[in-house]
Amino acid sequence: MALMTGEQYVESIRKLNLNIYMFGEKVENPVDNPILRPSLNSVKMTYDLAQMPEYEDLMTAKSNINGEKINRFAHIHQSTEDLMKKVKMQRLCGQKTAACFQRCVGMDAFNAVYSTTFEIDKAHGTHYHENFLKFLDYAQKNDLTVDGAMTDPKGDRGLSPSKQVDPDLYLHVVERRPDGIVVKGAKAHQTGIVNSHEVLVMPTIAMGPDDKDYAVSFVVPTDAEGILMIIGRQSCDTRKLEGCPLDCGNTEFGGVEALVVFDNVFVPNDRIFLNGETEYAGMLVERFAGYHRQSYGGCKVGVGDVLIGAAALIADYNGAAKASHIKDKLIEMTHLNETLYACGIACSAEGVKTESGNYIIDLLLANVCKQNVTRFPYEIARLAEDIAGGLMVTAPSQKDLESPVVGKYVEKYFRGVNAVSTTDRLKALRLIENLTLGTAAVGYRTESMHGAGSPQAQRIMISRQGNINGKKALAKAIAHIED
Amino acid sequence: MALMTGEQYVESIRKLNLNIYMFGEKVENPVDNPILRPSLNSVKMTYDLAQMPEYEDLMTAKSNINGEKINRFAHIHQSTEDLMKKVKMQRLCGQKTAACFQRCVGMDAFNAVYSTTFEIDKAHGTHYHENFLKFLDYAQKNDLTVDGAMTDPKGDRGLSPSKQVDPDLYLHVVERRPDGIVVKGAKAHQTGIVNSHEVLVMPTIAMGPDDKDYAVSFVVPTDAEGILMIIGRQSCDTRKLEGCPLDCGNTEFGGVEALVVFDNVFVPNDRIFLNGETEYAGMLVERFAGYHRQSYGGCKVGVGDVLIGAAALIADYNGAAKASHIKDKLIEMTHLNETLYACGIACSAEGVKTESGNYIIDLLLANVCKQNVTRFPYEIARLAEDIAGGLMVTAPSQKDLESPVVGKYVEKYFRGVNAVSTTDRLKALRLIENLTLGTAAVGYRTESMHGAGSPQAQRIMISRQGNINGKKALAKAIAHIED
Amino acid sequence: MALMTGEQYVESIRKLNLNIYMFGEKVENPVDNPILRPSLNSVKMTYDLAQMPEYEDLMTAKSNINGEKINRFAHIHQSTEDLMKKVKMQRLCGQKTAACFQRCVGMDAFNAVYSTTFEIDKAHGTHYHENFLKFLDYAQKNDLTVDGAMTDPKGDRGLSPSKQVDPDLYLHVVERRPDGIVVKGAKAHQTGIVNSHEVLVMPTIAMGPDDKDYAVSFVVPTDAEGILMIIGRQSCDTRKLEGCPLDCGNTEFGGVEALVVFDNVFVPNDRIFLNGETEYAGMLVERFAGYHRQSYGGCKVGVGDVLIGAAALIADYNGAAKASHIKDKLIEMTHLNETLYACGIACSAEGVKTESGNYIIDLLLANVCKQNVTRFPYEIARLAEDIAGGLMVTAPSQKDLESPVVGKYVEKYFRGVNAVSTTDRLKALRLIENLTLGTAAVGYRTESMHGAGSPQAQRIMISRQGNINGKKALAKAIAHIED
Amino acid sequence: MALMTGEQYVESIRKLNLNIYMFGEKVENPVDNPILRPSLNSVKMTYDLAQMPEYEDLMTAKSNINGEKINRFAHIHQSTEDLMKKVKMQRLCGQKTAACFQRCVGMDAFNAVYSTTFEIDKAHGTHYHENFLKFLDYAQKNDLTVDGAMTDPKGDRGLSPSKQVDPDLYLHVVERRPDGIVVKGAKAHQTGIVNSHEVLVMPTIAMGPDDKDYAVSFVVPTDAEGILMIIGRQSCDTRKLEGCPLDCGNTEFGGVEALVVFDNVFVPNDRIFLNGETEYAGMLVERFAGYHRQSYGGCKVGVGDVLIGAAALIADYNGAAKASHIKDKLIEMTHLNETLYACGIACSAEGVKTESGNYIIDLLLANVCKQNVTRFPYEIARLAEDIAGGLMVTAPSQKDLESPVVGKYVEKYFRGVNAVSTTDRLKALRLIENLTLGTAAVGYRTESMHGAGSPQAQRIMISRQGNINGKKALAKAIAHIED
Repeated sequence: MALMTGEQYVESIRKLNLNIYMFGEKVENPVDNPILRPSLNSVKMTYDLAQMPEYEDLMTAKSNINGEKINRFAHIHQSTEDLMKKVKMQRLCGQKTAACFQRCVGMDAFNAVYSTTFEIDKAHGTHYHENFLKFLDYAQKNDLTVDGAMTDPKGDRGLSPSKQVDPDLYLHVVERRPDGIVVKGAKAHQTGIVNSHEVLVMPTIAMGPDDKDYAVSFVVPTDAEGILMIIGRQSCDTRKLEGCPLDCGNTEFGGVEALVVFDNVFVPNDRIFLNGETEYAGMLVERFAGYHRQSYGGCKVGVGDVLIGAAALIADYNGAAKASHIKDKLIEMTHLNETLYACGIACSAEGVKTESGNYIIDLLLANVCKQNVTRFPYEIARLAEDIAGGLMVTAPSQKDLESPVVGKYVEKYFRGVNAVSTTDRLKALRLIENLTLGTAAVGYRTESMHGAGSPQAQRIMISRQGNINGKKALAKAIAHIED
Repeated sequence: MALMTGEQYVESIRKLNLNIYMFGEKVENPVDNPILRPSLNSVKMTYDLAQMPEYEDLMTAKSNINGEKINRFAHIHQSTEDLMKKVKMQRLCGQKTAACFQRCVGMDAFNAVYSTTFEIDKAHGTHYHENFLKFLDYAQKNDLTVDGAMTDPKGDRGLSPSKQVDPDLYLHVVERRPDGIVVKGAKAHQTGIVNSHEVLVMPTIAMGPDDKDYAVSFVVPTDAEGILMIIGRQSCDTRKLEGCPLDCGNTEFGGVEALVVFDNVFVPNDRIFLNGETEYAGMLVERFAGYHRQSYGGCKVGVGDVLIGAAALIADYNGAAKASHIKDKLIEMTHLNETLYACGIACSAEGVKTESGNYIIDLLLANVCKQNVTRFPYEIARLAEDIAGGLMVTAPSQKDLESPVVGKYVEKYFRGVNAVSTTDRLKALRLIENLTLGTAAVGYRTESMHGAGSPQAQRIMISRQGNINGKKALAKAIAHIED
Repeated sequence: MALMTGEQYVESIRKLNLNIYMFGEKVENPVDNPILRPSLNSVKMTYDLAQMPEYEDLMTAKSNINGEKINRFAHIHQSTEDLMKKVKMQRLCGQKTAACFQRCVGMDAFNAVYSTTFEIDKAHGTHYHENFLKFLDYAQKNDLTVDGAMTDPKGDRGLSPSKQVDPDLYLHVVERRPDGIVVKGAKAHQTGIVNSHEVLVMPTIAMGPDDKDYAVSFVVPTDAEGILMIIGRQSCDTRKLEGCPLDCGNTEFGGVEALVVFDNVFVPNDRIFLNGETEYAGMLVERFAGYHRQSYGGCKVGVGDVLIGAAALIADYNGAAKASHIKDKLIEMTHLNETLYACGIACSAEGVKTESGNYIIDLLLANVCKQNVTRFPYEIARLAEDIAGGLMVTAPSQKDLESPVVGKYVEKYFRGVNAVSTTDRLKALRLIENLTLGTAAVGYRTESMHGAGSPQAQRIMISRQGNINGKKALAKAIAHIED
Repeated sequence: MALMTGEQYVESIRKLNLNIYMFGEKVENPVDNPILRPSLNSVKMTYDLAQMPEYEDLMTAKSNINGEKINRFAHIHQSTEDLMKKVKMQRLCGQKTAACFQRCVGMDAFNAVYSTTFEIDKAHGTHYHENFLKFLDYAQKNDLTVDGAMTDPKGDRGLSPSKQVDPDLYLHVVERRPDGIVVKGAKAHQTGIVNSHEVLVMPTIAMGPDDKDYAVSFVVPTDAEGILMIIGRQSCDTRKLEGCPLDCGNTEFGGVEALVVFDNVFVPNDRIFLNGETEYAGMLVERFAGYHRQSYGGCKVGVGDVLIGAAALIADYNGAAKASHIKDKLIEMTHLNETLYACGIACSAEGVKTESGNYIIDLLLANVCKQNVTRFPYEIARLAEDIAGGLMVTAPSQKDLESPVVGKYVEKYFRGVNAVSTTDRLKALRLIENLTLGTAAVGYRTESMHGAGSPQAQRIMISRQGNINGKKALAKAIAHIED
């Protein structure tokens, strides 16, 4: 089948029998739901761009599994060049959607599971890698979107999985059968789940011997029996229901998050990638997190490009573009955004080959990348709000603009430079609002903070990877301190 | 009449015949409108607190005009102690509402107009100060809330008022009659207008001789003929219509902003405080802005207290309160918040007496105060999002929690430490969302940026007030450089 | 005797029989030593300014002990106004010396010992307060400079005083006699010791019951038997020996630090202020540190004024003063410097009366003040280096400028704007070097970091004083979370 | 001859007849001068490391000119891999010297001149590229160190070269002869000049038609007639003369800067690379600056590694290594340092081929790299000072430590953890002092600021390279704003 078109992808999702709840009600037709559709459109963009010749080199790759031309989101990275192209692809998708396009988690899960299963099999004589290759071949050939599901609800952060009052606060095996396993639990903050064909589950932390049932990784269809999704609320979510595109800022694209409940879901043996080898849970988490921290050096940069562009636009529309402080703020925004990109590129260029043959990013630099992502988008957003002016949060609604009674006042009093229509000025302001306070702020701010692990998780990795003893030795040599 | 109770205040607003539009429709009953009511409640708090003995010293003062006990929001500051109490009163109100309580603009306008009219009269032999004293006596005795209206729409920021294509983009006099003037134009971002009895208009920038008609200040009732208000949209505004208090974070208090249109409004002579004396426009702006920049060192600090408290609460509920990085982040939030407070207190303690006898803050320090307010609340918000965890933007709705089908999953999987109910945990998260991304973020973030003047406005004042030549002289003396 | 003139002060120090070592040699005449003299001159400035009518209000006060007019550095603060004047006096002295003028530690020690001894006596029936009053009367009447000595060497930071391998790493009582005590140990980083008449010793940390011998406070003359001082090296210290004032940046003023060794020093009973009451060690430390953290909101601001002035000067001399980025950096430097000042003023204005009757600063705000001092001077220095240009670290020596062979090249090629001499340009650059990298950088940077306690010490106090439970209660009230 | 050993290099410099002045005196034997020798040792390290098999891949390359194995510092980059290796080589050299090793400027000049001369020749039919290839072959085969000299004294920053009162404030051609040109002027801040065999001169800014005589590039031996060097003073420079290695922090390595005067220096035709083609001055500057801004992503990172190591060491020696805030500060230092490295790597990995065939870095990312270098080393230094404690600026001299009278006190009272000698503790502190306030701070701080162009120069380039119009188009597409 090779590559799907965007439309084919949408129809393939329509065919799924997903069990989705939102605002306490079952969503019967998620594909056409006004709140969910923009999120689907973002994933669709990953299919659309792959069809365009100008993006072919970035958006597609040749599979190392079956030799076919596949979407890069399903690719196992074969070189540092592949790792760099991944980041560029993500920046492109961010620029085209100004939102989270969700398909990265699957790609990052593929590459982490690929190398980790290889090493488990080598150590334990298991067949996880073979299982995974079979699934991957299927996913590549059918151009599937796969949700990589890692984050458990976690309950009391002070307690390990097996010590929680409720044993289900981390997903775990509740039954072992000859033909497979039954799992129970949930995964939180799942960005792409409602737009995915399959969900690939991984553990969320390194584990000790007591956590054996929690060390489990597998893949199942998103409409498997026992799976249920509950959509999370986003800031300004219901604006999409009002029929007022102007007020939305970004009407076409978005992203949503869901809690995915696994209520005694059966997993057949050949779809299991980890099952009780607790000592490998940490490796899988570390590698997935590493890849995903790299990802943020692409996707958030692309979204940042749009926000910088919107800020430059509103400066034009306000008649303020020539003020030196405005120019300086746009430079600072660009500087910060490109610093993130530099980190994404650097951890890729410094990537290394794993035992299994695929390439993994430099873990230290990938964590440095993500750590900066927990800071700079906030400052970029702050500067955008500075440039935009207060109107970005006090502008009236589209309905006011269109009102026969008060529309003329809105039209008259919210005009900036005379050459630009009030409507265009409001569009630019609403886009900035969307990215700094609205639905997209969830992705651009809070998920920049917590996605792929909260800031402290990166600091722990930076501490581990920073070779502080090597640095002490350097200092001793210079200072002539003998051991 | 002296002090009104909160209830009396609400009823007094109900009696007004305000001309308010929202979502393209006229709001027939603003007092009970679910979107507007929380904003009214915030102002109501300024009346409620003034009734409470424990806050009497902060919330009330003895009028220098009529000797009566009045609400401090209507007071003319008689000492640096008064200036400091003002800041403390604002912090208190911020703590009690976690929102903008709006009544400061009137207080700051009172004090700026008080001293400026005194000086205009002295120079020009006009009677503005007398006019103002008469109005103030009325406002104090009736315990009125007065909106101080300064910010014009401004159109093209590169052009002065009289050079705009549309002359109405700055409010101006369109007709001069024997008994008064007729004005036209609008004031944007008016936070308290829908909850005010009167609106006191001031010019928004220093003016040159060409801008004579734009140099105008006056007060009129908010339901005067020709006045019309259009409510601005806030992030998450319509959540208040859903009947789901849990999703709102702060159900009781809020703030809204409006565009106030003056469509040929008549102002009688005895309510005019400036009329064509262009050289005093700058002084009035500078003093109002100075007082209002001081204000932010109180009100935003109070809101910050709530946000810090909410972050500490969710750390407890997550089971993460003992982690050293969490404790350190709470310290940093406190440190930044108290730095803002220190600036508010310092510009008050360093206040000086004006020619008219009231006290004005130290202008340099007040501008320094506000400049910090354009930065630190953003960092405090970022740290709150860090501590909260991603759930603050991915938690399901109240309707999901209450659903007979999926409620049990929400209840089960979003529990943190076992001792705290999921509902309480969600309440804490929604409060943080409200303050960092929701309706209150408009006030805590974007209005911290632009309220009382955008950051660059403060920098210009810091440059002017910083006595750089005096500093050069100090350096020359130390370096033995002779002139 | 009342107030001494600067010259009388210098002669009074000359009469002391101080036991000072520097570069391994005894300093026979410290008063005229080129490295030490600038430090003496800084203290002398506190005497000179007190003689000048224009500074009388700031520099002098009326003693609450004996009713005489005294130098404010010897004053017990009687009001918040006194606390504010203290900060202003320190800013003035910083502006006049661009260095540490050292006399604050004594003043801060006086005020901390004053209130603490009062409370100890009340609890224990001791006579420490009476002892202290007697000494203070003497110090005030003789206009003495007193070194407040707190910081012990501390050895292994992981161990308490009594657990150190060497018991002397914290100063302690080694013998108790009927007429007094004998102490042993040392105090490190003593900035004013070589210019002081007396040294007032305090413990450096809160103590437990095991540390009884370490809980000791007293005052002795700086030339008491058993006292020995070893001068610390400063960056660029020996430039002062070269006879090339141009290269020094600030030839007249400076500050030095010393280790003061107490080698079995006898302290008579009436000069003891604490002796074994371990539970009061913490109070004394906290109060002294609080006053001293306030101090930094004055003195460092004054030095900052000089640095800002020097940066503005070199911008003029470089012909760069009109560049918008230069202007903006000067604004930022001013903003940061005034933020520090605001903190100094605020903790003073919010001061409260102690049981003993003197005034103490608001401890939370004083710690916030110092915490900012550990950050902003570094950024101000960075901006100064930015404005100055690389020449500040690559300019040739005064000897090159004066060389018959190469002087003409220096003169020619290091001229900036034509109207300013190369010598003046170099003077301005050397002053910036002095403050950012040279002798004064020790005071402006590293001692801003560690003086009055390292940053973490303030964070612990901010945590303690920040009333986090009160803030949680505010958040609960808003979120309607019931206990 | 191929690669020289370090010793051979030193002897080759000894043979030069350099005309060096310091402290107003001619330096007769620079090679053995205690102030200059550490700087020579740093360059020597680039020869020593190239002899070591473990560093062969980083330190050497195969010349594209003559096929020989050469030192990478003389290499023309043939690939992005070469660009990345350059950065790694620089980090290594920084780690081994904790100082500026100076040889980068020549390497960066080579690569900029290589591509620019190719393009000039193509446009103008000149022979600059041929001239340069001939020189380069000679430099490679003789393993020469070449100083790249760009920065003119610049006089009044508000005036262009030809508008200065003194025409020599930018280096220029004063005579054109058949066999060559005569130049006059100077280059400031030359870090490697006294340790170089040749000096390659380039213009310092883009030029207009009036500046024809200033658009000149050439290479001459450092001991050519008419060349004279005046050494700049560094903080703590004369400590190296005291014979007290402990007080120096880093006794073996350093860097010095000099003003190089060109007093009517003759340049033969075949050593000229630009002569009046003003429109190429900008390209040459931009490319050299670009390469050199990349360089800082390597060398300063290496120095940063030593400083982080020293901070970790002193934390151990102080007994504070387990404190969570200390660990967190070391993580932050590492994070910032690696962010710089990421930028250095990223601009290399994103390098592109020039028309001449060599590779040039991505200019946007190289400028982003350097912009971060103007910030992060300052913060790393601040954190190092925080961890070190005040003793780093108050410790007595080596002479005190060795004094028969006071040595015992120094030994006793400056011991940290008992297991580490006081001497080792002082060594670690002095190294931190050296890097943050001493001779090495000149390189690590101020030259991080101004080397390869001051911060504003990078901001201008970021503005130019940031494609703000492309970003506006992205925003318009998302917001559905039509042109």
